[in-house]
This record gives sequence, structure tokens and C-alpha cells, in this order.
Amino acid sequence: MVVAKSWTMARHFEAIPKPDEFKLIEKELPPLKDGEVLLESEFLSVDPYMRPYSRQFLKEGDVMMGSQVARVVESKNPNIAVGTYYVANSGWTTHFISDGQGIHALPPTWPESLPRSLALGVLGMPGYTAYFGLLDICNPKEGEVVLVNCAAGAVGSLVGQIAKIKGCKAVGSAGSDDKVAYLKEIGFDEAFNYKTVSSLAEALKQASPEGYDCYFENVGGKYADAALPQMKTFGRVSVCGSISMYNDSVLQTGPYIQPYLLFKQLRMEGFIVTRWEDRYPEAQKHLLEWVLEGKLKYREHVINGFENMPLGFIGLFKGDNIGKAIIKV
Amino acid sequence: MVVAKSWTMARHFEAIPKPDEFKLIEKELPPLKDGEVLLESEFLSVDPYMRPYSRQFLKEGDVMMGSQVARVVESKNPNIAVGTYYVANSGWTTHFISDGQGIHALPPTWPESLPRSLALGVLGMPGYTAYFGLLDICNPKEGEVVLVNCAAGAVGSLVGQIAKIKGCKAVGSAGSDDKVAYLKEIGFDEAFNYKTVSSLAEALKQASPEGYDCYFENVGGKYADAALPQMKTFGRVSVCGSISMYNDSVLQTGPYIQPYLLFKQLRMEGFIVTRWEDRYPEAQKHLLEWVLEGKLKYREHVINGFENMPLGFIGLFKGDNIGKAIIKV
Repeated sequence: MVVAKSWTMARHFEAIPKPDEFKLIEKELPPLKDGEVLLESEFLSVDPYMRPYSRQFLKEGDVMMGSQVARVVESKNPNIAVGTYYVANSGWTTHFISDGQGIHALPPTWPESLPRSLALGVLGMPGYTAYFGLLDICNPKEGEVVLVNCAAGAVGSLVGQIAKIKGCKAVGSAGSDDKVAYLKEIGFDEAFNYKTVSSLAEALKQASPEGYDCYFENVGGKYADAALPQMKTFGRVSVCGSISMYNDSVLQTGPYIQPYLLFKQLRMEGFIVTRWEDRYPEAQKHLLEWVLEGKLKYREHVINGFENMPLGFIGLFKGDNIGKAIIKV
Repeated sequence: MVVAKSWTMARHFEAIPKPDEFKLIEKELPPLKDGEVLLESEFLSVDPYMRPYSRQFLKEGDVMMGSQVARVVESKNPNIAVGTYYVANSGWTTHFISDGQGIHALPPTWPESLPRSLALGVLGMPGYTAYFGLLDICNPKEGEVVLVNCAAGAVGSLVGQIAKIKGCKAVGSAGSDDKVAYLKEIGFDEAFNYKTVSSLAEALKQASPEGYDCYFENVGGKYADAALPQMKTFGRVSVCGSISMYNDSVLQTGPYIQPYLLFKQLRMEGFIVTRWEDRYPEAQKHLLEWVLEGKLKYREHVINGFENMPLGFIGLFKGDNIGKAIIKV
């Protein structure tokens, strides 16, 4: 008998998630039926989207949502071998049973040199998010200026580097001097600490006096109020996240943005990465090439121990991580 | 000697424009040089865009901006015959001199049955605005639901009808029962008076319980706050105007809209019609066909007398007009 440990959302989060809003449960898993496999999580992902989505899709007591890299430890499915690794979307749990639907094997071309956890980062959902959110929505052209916030995060750090690969100038902001140093290390042309600048608008102006063609938005709220007036005519805004607003129970208010859209003829589009699900292989191919060529650098913020998973998640909203936050079981 | 009368903006407008912010001036025009023509305005256009653009582009004392249909009354240009009609962009003036650049002859195919003033309405800039703003930005598909506000205005009344021509359901709102009756007369599927409904959100819900695919935005502000939550996933918002905000000196505030863009994956784009200038003939061809086929109905709100032009303009912000507001000199 296998006992799965899982983290549930004991109560809906209020403001920034707190440890006592999670509860660890244990559950015996039933024996496998024909066609099923038992998987054991090796790495789990914590991502900002879980904050707003938990309110939308979970009820209190449900296991937290999320994805993992997991190893097949027992198989009654002739197509799935024990010892192989899969990416699954089975929530915050150490063990789970699958009938093989909705789990995806790590590609056979996966280089030995790369940690499997990258399937939750640069070569997984955050990678696809940066790839499609920047290239398909902003459509940046060589020589254009791309702004990204949360630039040291799992997605933002990739956005700036993909912008560079495409011949753009990359400007990024982050919330600590260490993060800013990291941005410069991975090739951002301009980077600043939004917490210590005296004026965000001035910092944006200084980083690109000519303004911005593309704006990859992870923050929203007052950040956007400062950035939108600095967009160039026909600028494109890719709305990937609104982390500054996830922890509010009522929507924050600010100046209406429609006049900026109108007079600068801006295009602004929100997206959820799953809309490109059928094109993930295309993205993974390019991302892997860039990683192997050394053009796309990544960093992982590894939290050890399944029992620390809530703390890893909470850390996302406190700016703990540079790069992708990963739980190592 | 010809004396041109012109309306100037005596002071920058505060809130809703007021009569004493305009000043009528008279100026003797010089004799024509070779290549020049003298034109006399027959119809002039007043449009909402003049309110924000005057602040952006005019200084106090400048002649108000705008377009007209004008007759050539004297010509020293071998290519421009006396008695022919042109659309010009020469501001609020009775007479003006042109070297032939930037004025556009009414097309030789202009049907005798149609008033020339339509070159300032359905067959001119407002027509192009509705045509491109709806078709190019929203890209409405057969069976989709299109929402337009200021629906009885010069642009909105065309948007709803073009939506119907394309096989969509058209929902419009306007500010009086007469306007609502007009919308039903010209084929809107649903129309309501936004001033008398008890809840805008409820009225929008009732008009299309399934939500909206396309939203042609003329109003902004609180209207958008009620409409954006009712967009369907992958909805498109064409930001043509923000009339509810033109008369404010500081931007109004409201709930940030980014979360709607994000979770519904909406695309929102502002536009200024001149971006499609090279495609105006395409639009005019289709608009003219639809007018002649009776599929595109228009109404004009004619203000008689050049001396009443400021009142005609002010009326735009008080909801005076059904259809296109036109000054007949």
C-alpha cells in the first residue's frame, strides 16, 4: 500500500497566502487497475497563477493544483515503463495514479546534462508562456524595445532573453539588487530595482528614453499606470499576469487606461498559455536549442522537502525567488 | 476679395465645451496664386474627437480643426474645375485656399441621389471608422454577438448595421428612448436606454445572456467596467473613443481592467482611423454598395448656419444628435 501525502487548501486564501491556510493530508492509494500506473513526484512546481486560480477553481479542502515531474514506480500499463519520467498536472501530492491520459513523457531527446526539473521551468509551462506570450502576442521586431517586469522570475527572465535572441533591446525590473545583478548577468540591456528607484516613471524613461514597443506584463496595477504612458504608438502589451492584484479581495482602482490605448493605438491582450497547447512541441524545440547553445540561461530556486511546499509558494509573493521556484521532494 | 469666417478655439475647453470658449473671426483671403483654388464650405463636420485633439494639437486662438465638403468657386489650377466638390480638412471655416494637396474630389461615381454631406458621414471618416474599427480590430464572425455604445451616433449606428451585414447579433445602447427606437428601426437586435435602466450590467446581461464576442467602445469609464466582465473568452474590444472621459482634466479612476483581459484572454486595441488611409477606397466602395442596397441606413442631424457650429459641437456631448451631426453653411 502506498500512502500519498498531499497539501490541501484548507481555507480560501486571504491577502498573501499564510501557512495555516494549507493542510497536509495522507491517503492510502488503492491497488492499480489494469492500464494504470503509479507515479512518485520528484519535483513540483509553485507558480503565481495558483493564487487566483485556487479561488476560481478549488473549493476549501481540495488538493492544491499544480504540476510535477514524476517517476513511474509501478505499472499495469503496457505503454508506460517503470522508471520513466512524466510531467503531470496532479496537484501538490507525492504519489498519484494515472491511466496514462494527460501525462506527458519527457521527450526521448531530453539531454542527460539537463535536470529534469527544467520540464517545470524553461522547458515547460513557464518557457512556453514566455515564448508564445512574447512572440505571438507582442510580435517584437529587431531593434524594438521590450519591457518586462518580474524580470528575474521564472517567466520574466526568459522573456528578456528571448527578446535579445530576436534582436531587441531588453529592459527589466525586479525587486532586489541581487535580482538586478542577475538580469545584467543574463544579458538584459537595462535593469533596475523598482523598490529603490525614487520614481518608477523616471526609471522607465531613463532605461529607454524613446519609449517601449512591447510590454510583457506580469504585475499590473500601479506599475502599468507608469508604463502604459511610455508605450510608443502601435505598442503591444502582453498581459501574462497581474501579481500585484492577486492578493486583493476587491479590485484595486486606478486611472482608466482606455485613453492610452486609444491615442497611442496600443494593442493589449491577455492570455493563458494553454491556448497554444498544440504548439508546445514547437516552443520546446526552440527553447531547448537556445538552452543548449547557451543563449537562454536559467536559474532555479529549489526548496527542499515536500513539507516546505506552502512556504515555497508563499515566497513567490514575497519575492524570494530568482528564476523558477521548484520543490524537490 | 473674399472674406473667410472661421471659428477659433479662444481658450482650451474646460469640461463640456461652452459657447464663450469659441470666437468667430473674419479674415480677407489673398488673391489666388497659380496652381491654387478657392473653396467655399457647403457642409462641415463636428465630431467628438475634436474635444481631446484640440487640447493635444491646437493652441488658444487657432482655428478649430475639422473637415468639410466644399465647392470650388475660383481656380487657378488646371486640374481642378470651378463647380466641383472636394472633401477637405481645413477646419471650421467658410472659405479657404488650397494648392490641391490634401483635398479629395468626391468620386465621379457619386450617385446624384445621395447628399454630398454623406462624404462627412457614412461615406467618409465615420464610415471608415465603423468599417475598419469593427472588421479589422474585432474581426466579428457570423453568429457572434457585437456590442456598441453611443449606438445612435455617427459611428455606432453604422457599427451595428455592419455587424448585422456580417451575420452577427447587434446590441446597442443609447441615451434616449427616441434613439433606442431608431436603433430598432435600423435593425439592431437589442437596444436599450442606458440612462433609464436600473443597472447597466443587468441590461447588458439581458440583451445577451451568453455574453459578448465583440465590443466596439465609444464611451469608456464606468460603461466599460460593466461591459468587460461580460465579454466571452477570446473577446475583442475595439477602442474607438472614450467620450465619457474627454471632458475631464484628470483621468477618472476605476477598477483595473487587466484581470478581465487576463482571465478571459481578451484583446483590446485602440485605433485612429487614419492608420487605414490607404484602404479608404476599399471601405468607401463597400459602404456605398450597402447604402445603395438599403442595407446601411443613415440619418443626419443637420444644424443650419455656420454661426451655430459651436452649438452643434457642444450638442455632441449632450447627446443631441441621432446619426451624423452636420453643419450646413
